[in-house]
Amino acid sequence: MQPSANPEFLRRAIALATENVETGAGGPFGAVIVRDGRILAEGVNTVTVANDPTAHAEVNAIRAAAKALGAFTLAGCRLYSSCQPCPMCLSAAYWARMDAVYYGASAEDAARAGFDDAFLYDELRKNPAERKLLPATQLLGEEAWASFAAWIASAHKIAY
Amino acid sequence: MQPSANPEFLRRAIALATENVETGAGGPFGAVIVRDGRILAEGVNTVTVANDPTAHAEVNAIRAAAKALGAFTLAGCRLYSSCQPCPMCLSAAYWARMDAVYYGASAEDAARAGFDDAFLYDELRKNPAERKLLPATQLLGEEAWASFAAWIASAHKIAY
Repeated sequence: MQPSANPEFLRRAIALATENVETGAGGPFGAVIVRDGRILAEGVNTVTVANDPTAHAEVNAIRAAAKALGAFTLAGCRLYSSCQPCPMCLSAAYWARMDAVYYGASAEDAARAGFDDAFLYDELRKNPAERKLLPATQLLGEEAWASFAAWIASAHKIAY
Repeated sequence: MQPSANPEFLRRAIALATENVETGAGGPFGAVIVRDGRILAEGVNTVTVANDPTAHAEVNAIRAAAKALGAFTLAGCRLYSSCQPCPMCLSAAYWARMDAVYYGASAEDAARAGFDDAFLYDELRKNPAERKLLPATQLLGEEAWASFAAWIASAHKIAY
């Protein structure tokens, strides 16, 4: 059961997105993370200004929220994003163990503004060999297992 | 046509992954970014030590490489990862416009060590309504278009 959303938080994310364009700071994307009915962190797209291709609004907001909490998960938090999170950002929300995502514009809207989100979703639905995405090739599979063997055997690991 | 891979760079990524477990710094993942036949940046998983759920080895390496180049894309660079990049990291490599990805262990190997990468790939193949992943709900679609309209109209945007 999806918990109820508060559209005011989404309006804040949309305002951040528009402001980010108006100031010339970055792409038209904003995100807000809410916990216990209050804004815990905000983020805007800073890819170009920060020289960081991962600095989407949602990733920035997730990083800020985790820092604010001093925690590596965001269980109990909800993400409000001005636009449907791309696969990178949706996956980040998943890894952060967030409760829910609410978004305004769709990936198709983003495509009409020149962004590749919809393409990326389509590509991830395909088998790796059929993707037009950058090629990903496995090598040294057996050697690579050694890292996981070390992890499994480790007595002092912090599971996450 | 996939350019040829140099297994020594992948061995370096695997060594970083194993070392990261042995020092207790984080999960069993390492990544190396190569440009013009030389290592430009390296990364290890620092999710728990940095309180950052996005701090996978590949994301850390991509962020470091972009910082080193002073650029927001990594065209001409290849990613070597000790394990098949999760959808977050593969998408990050895509957004960074990298040339190729080479990996050692598979997402299924990661699953055997307790990580959710294979689950996340499976979920992203489904229609949103069928996902067990955190729910993502659209609201205020028309209001949200305003940010893209501002972007399209902006004279001083930096496309990325």
